[in-house]
Order: sequence, then structure tokens, then C-alpha cells
Amino acid sequence: MIPKKYITWGSSGAVIRELAAYGAERAKVVGPENVYDFTIGSPSIEPPKKFFDVLDRLMKTVSPIELHTYAPAAGLESVRAAVAKYLTETFGVQYSPNDIYMTHGASSALAIILAALMSEGEEALVLAPYFPEYKIYVEQAGGTLIEVPCDEDFQVDLAALEAKLTPKTSVIIINSPNNPSGAVLSPDSVKAIAELLNKKAAEYGHPIYIVADEPYRELVYGDVEVPFIPAYYDNTVYCYSFSKSLSLPGERIGFLALSPKMTEHDNAWAAVCGAGRALGYVCVSTMFQQAAAECLGVTADISKYDDNRQLAYSALSDMGFNCVKPDGAFYLFIKAPGGDSQAFCRKAMEKDILVVPGDAFGCPGYVRLAYCVPFDRIKRSLPAFKALAEEYGL
Amino acid sequence: MIPKKYITWGSSGAVIRELAAYGAERAKVVGPENVYDFTIGSPSIEPPKKFFDVLDRLMKTVSPIELHTYAPAAGLESVRAAVAKYLTETFGVQYSPNDIYMTHGASSALAIILAALMSEGEEALVLAPYFPEYKIYVEQAGGTLIEVPCDEDFQVDLAALEAKLTPKTSVIIINSPNNPSGAVLSPDSVKAIAELLNKKAAEYGHPIYIVADEPYRELVYGDVEVPFIPAYYDNTVYCYSFSKSLSLPGERIGFLALSPKMTEHDNAWAAVCGAGRALGYVCVSTMFQQAAAECLGVTADISKYDDNRQLAYSALSDMGFNCVKPDGAFYLFIKAPGGDSQAFCRKAMEKDILVVPGDAFGCPGYVRLAYCVPFDRIKRSLPAFKALAEEYGL
Repeated sequence: MIPKKYITWGSSGAVIRELAAYGAERAKVVGPENVYDFTIGSPSIEPPKKFFDVLDRLMKTVSPIELHTYAPAAGLESVRAAVAKYLTETFGVQYSPNDIYMTHGASSALAIILAALMSEGEEALVLAPYFPEYKIYVEQAGGTLIEVPCDEDFQVDLAALEAKLTPKTSVIIINSPNNPSGAVLSPDSVKAIAELLNKKAAEYGHPIYIVADEPYRELVYGDVEVPFIPAYYDNTVYCYSFSKSLSLPGERIGFLALSPKMTEHDNAWAAVCGAGRALGYVCVSTMFQQAAAECLGVTADISKYDDNRQLAYSALSDMGFNCVKPDGAFYLFIKAPGGDSQAFCRKAMEKDILVVPGDAFGCPGYVRLAYCVPFDRIKRSLPAFKALAEEYGL
Repeated sequence: MIPKKYITWGSSGAVIRELAAYGAERAKVVGPENVYDFTIGSPSIEPPKKFFDVLDRLMKTVSPIELHTYAPAAGLESVRAAVAKYLTETFGVQYSPNDIYMTHGASSALAIILAALMSEGEEALVLAPYFPEYKIYVEQAGGTLIEVPCDEDFQVDLAALEAKLTPKTSVIIINSPNNPSGAVLSPDSVKAIAELLNKKAAEYGHPIYIVADEPYRELVYGDVEVPFIPAYYDNTVYCYSFSKSLSLPGERIGFLALSPKMTEHDNAWAAVCGAGRALGYVCVSTMFQQAAAECLGVTADISKYDDNRQLAYSALSDMGFNCVKPDGAFYLFIKAPGGDSQAFCRKAMEKDILVVPGDAFGCPGYVRLAYCVPFDRIKRSLPAFKALAEEYGL
């Protein structure tokens, strides 16, 4: 019998893709230059040259059979060693290859680690706003997702977090830089969270794991420091994707790193291998994982996102919109004038501006504008935003 | 809390990989030319030239951002259309793009479709011998795997199948050409299965789905016809991988095709999308899925496997080993002299021949020899096999 939950998950939650599809249709009517589509968080700058250089070298020097054969499920030994070395040298936490499991981007890292760390009936807390797929991965693992609202600056609200912690809490998902708010959790926030979790874990007599989802780690602007959570809290699993840093979202390359000092490390490792296997994963692309490993620390030209960010933030703020100044990722989170984000999105749509209601991210009252688009699109959209601001009497 | 089942799945079942690892260690001692490793079913012939030509063209003509961006979860529309067209033209079953869901090889197709078609407490039958991962995918879906032994020729034993069918049966997994036996199910066998399932489904008042796992479809030798099961039975989901036909196992490209006339088609489609999402899949490599779609019907040079097959089968049969003559795949299934496959594998190991006990495939008493190796390795192994035959008094 077809399980209802999969039918539901397969027929729902496509808000963003539906909006984008509407945009594509609308472009046929009014011309693509007159549709200001800010819906999808897909990289818009070229992958770095180094990536293609490495790919080219691999394709010319490695035999095709070897280059395209199965990799071990956890990843090639050389790739896992490179990742461990990079993390150790960059963040000062001593990783070994035995902590590193290559995944099809951060999404599969999350699906695997949540299955591996949660049992039926347990709870995963998440700082809201958050990426909506978390809820599905948690429920697939038999757990329940509990939202913890952030404060006005999208930093952790410690009292709110403490109020939601219970003996059933096994995991907290933290995504910094954040999709959709663009906020970066401060080192002080991370320290405070770590302290609270240590206290509560001792009280409950079982570990509470942080799952740190960090595909946007390198997409930060100005002098912002992104604290490396495993350096603050041993029971952290670090989930990473090369999708944003290398602009390769379609090739699905990422990894998860168990903290070397985490509680029940070896059982967690076995469970990661078991969950990966049970969810149908065999290995990450043998070719792409090697190429990515040589590009650790390399990024696409992020300065273009910064240009977009500056323009979108300053122009919209000047018009009277209340925007969170994003320190990272490629999203601008805008407070919906009047407080109704759905209504705001509809009004924006009438002006061919497409943005996503914050409701989809557990944060009604806001809308998300993805500024990973051509600079020119932002520029051309400004008169429409201006008209929108006037309509709202800003 | 870390679920025990994942720890178990993550720490077990690595028989084949352990044997291969032993082989690699042993090669350091006696030299690689003196270890006859026949453990792993990984393609040993080059991908076809056409694949690289297409890849080259894509990389030169499509912008990197577009070539490596997200694909829709089900696959690019153009790719799904190409697959549907190919299946329709080749097998005479009318597929549309809406039946095709691209997957990371056959493994993820199986994990997704078993989740989508099975509910807690249901049973999946499988014709034994079978690929051991089936059991994990079925149990992950909340079901139980029930083995149905084949007859001596590795064709279906209808009475045995009927005896295992119950109202709890929701799925039958059929893998032809078969790993590990190399047997191809005859059209008559498929017809008989279809008839039986139609009768039983009517009796139970619910559909019984066939999941046809066919990564070896093109690897057949001589005039053997591989019946296309969806043409015989509407409630079939066809799972395919390009890993073997194009020799690209490390790049994870495959698809599943819902039969257009299957019961509850639209719910099944939604459930496939939902299960794919819940298991953490986002999309199949945007670049590789396009390249594979242009290579539908193309294969690597399969004749090399046939040479290997002829040599291994005839030489071992001549020595007195009782082998199933394989019509497809790249495995030779050998009856263990004396009946104890574990003992036989150990004795073979003493002669540096590495083969896998059939126990791993639900078929004790046999061993699997993967002949997807250099021709020369088979040739050089023959004296060792001869000595083994003599030891057993064959």
C-alpha cells in the first residue's frame, strides 16, 4: 500500500518551484527582462577556474574505468583524508578520515545524519527561520521538528531555546549563515548554546547533538566571522556542501564530519554508514568528489553576490522596507509591510516581482528575496519595488 | 538515540568488500598477478566513446552555470522525454515523461520505489538468489523480505512463489539478468508470473507490484531475449541503471519508470517524489543525466565480457565444476563441490582465488565468480582452479 506520508510530501511544499514556474510562464508574456524572479537560491556565478582545471587533468590522466568506477560508500580514502586535513588546518579541530563521510550535497548529509542520530518519538529543535526540508528529514527519521523562534536580529533566543528542550530532544539543527535570513550566528550565541546544551545533556543523561548545516559558510561579506560550531561543542556533526562555494549544485557533492570527540562516535559512524546504505546511497560521483577535494578552500567569485547584496539591501532599505542586513548566504529577508507576507507576495507579483513568503521557512511576516541573480535584474526591479513601497505608504 | 538497525547495517554485510580488501593486501605479498580476485561486480571495460563525445560537447557548448545547476527532482524534462521515447520505441509500452523519475543508479531507484509502494508490516517477495541490498531497502520501508527459491535452472518455481504469496504481499522484486546467477528469466516464466499475480491480486483485492531491477539488461550473450516485464504486467515499476551498460558505476545515473497503466499511478508518482525527497535526494547530476540520455541504447563493448564468460564457463565446466551457464550479467554461479560454499571459498582462498559465497545472495551451496576482470586474470587463474578441482576429486 502506498504510504500517505510520501504522497503528501510528493504533492506539497513546492511553493518556491511553483513561483519560479509561474515566473517562467509570465516571462513568455511580458518578456524575461520584465519579470523580477527572486525565488530560487541557485548559484548564479561561474564555478572557479580551478575546478575545471582539475577536472580536465583528471579526465586526461586517469583511466576512464578508474575515474568512473565505484568509490567506497564513505568516499575515496584520499578525498576523506583531504577533507579531514582541510578542516583540521582551517578550524583547529583534529579530524581524521574516519570522521568524514562523503554525501550527495548537504541534503543527503542531513537525511543520513538525522536518521542515524534520532529514534522514533524524539524531537529535533530548529532555530526558525529554517530550510523547510529539515521537517521532512526529521519526520522520515521518526521524529518531530520543534521550532524555536529567533530574536529580532535572528540570533538565538536562549530562553526560547531552553523552554523547548526536553528529555526527548536528541538533536538541534543550526544553519548559519542562514537560509532564509542571511544571519550569521555570533560566537557568543554559539558559546551560550553550547553551555546550555551541556547543562541539559547532563541533566537528561544523554547527549544532545548539534547538526550544523553549513552550505553557505564561505558566502559571507565584510569581516564577519562564522564560528565553527564543532570547535565550541563536541557533539556536533558538521554538514557541508560544495554546491554554493563552487557553484555546482547540480552535481551533488558534500560531506558530513562527525566530531572526533563526540559521544558514541563509533556507533554514530556505523549508523551513518548504515543509514546511507538504507536510504539507497552507494557513493558520491567518483570523478566529482576528487575534483571537489582539490578545491577545498577555493570559491567562486563571491564578490558578485556582495555587489547584489549591497544594492538590494540599500535600495530597499532606502525605500522604507525593513530588511535584515544579511551577513551571509545570498538572501535578503524583508519584513512584510502590514505584516501579511502572503498578501505582500501577491501584491509584489502584480508588479512581476517574485519573492517567497517566510511562512515556508517557519517565519510568517517576512519574505525571502534570493539575490543570487544577475545584478541587472536587481537594478531593473527597483522601480517596481518603489511602486510597491508607495502602495504600502512607506 | 542512535537506532540499532543502522548500526547493524553499517557494520555488517561487507563480505564482498572485505574479500576484495583481503585480495588487495594479499597482492602486496605475492604480487597482484598472483591473486585471482573475482569478488566485485564492477565494470572492467571502457565507457563507450559516444559518452565522452557528448560530455565534451556539453562542456564546450553549455554555460557552466546551466550545466551544473539544479535539475528538477524528477530529472530534466528533456531527459525524461528522451527516456520515455526510448522505452516506448524499444519495448512497445507507451511511456510519457510523467512516468520517468531519474535516480542515482538502480540502488536509489529501489530504495525510493520500495518506500513508495510498501507500508509497515507488508511483505516483499524476491526470487532467490538475489542482490543482498534488497533486504535492507525492504526493511527500511517497514516491510519484510521473503525469499522464494528458484528451480535448478534459476527460473521461477511457480509453486514456490504461489506458496509465499499472502494478502500481505505488496511487491515482488525480479532481477533479470540476475546477479549472482547470470540467469535470464524466460518469456514463459514472466507470463506465468503475471498470470499468477493477476489472479492473486484479484483474490486479495489489492495490487501486487513487480519491481523489475534491470541494470544488466544489455549484458546478454548469444540470442537470448530479455523479456521487458512491463509489457507483460501492468503493475510493474522498471528500475534501470547506466552503471553497467555505459561502465559508469561511480557516477550514479539511473531511472525508474512507472508503468503508464499501473494501479494508482498518480498516487504512486506522488509517493515516488515524496520518498525521493524524504530520503535526501535533490537531483541526479545535471551534466551526467544529459550525457546518459543521449547514450540510450548505446553500450560499452560487451563482447569482452562474452570472451570472459566463454573462457570461465568452458574451462571450469571441463574441470568438472558444475556451473550455471550464464546468459547475462557478468557472473558465473558455481555449485560448491561438497555443498559447503563457505568451505569452498576458504579452500579457493588458499590458492589465492577469491570468490563470494552464495550465502550472501540467499543461495548457500553456490559461489559467485565475477568475470568482469581482465581476460588474462581468468587465464592465469586456471591452474589454481585445476588444483582446486583435483583437491575435491572432480
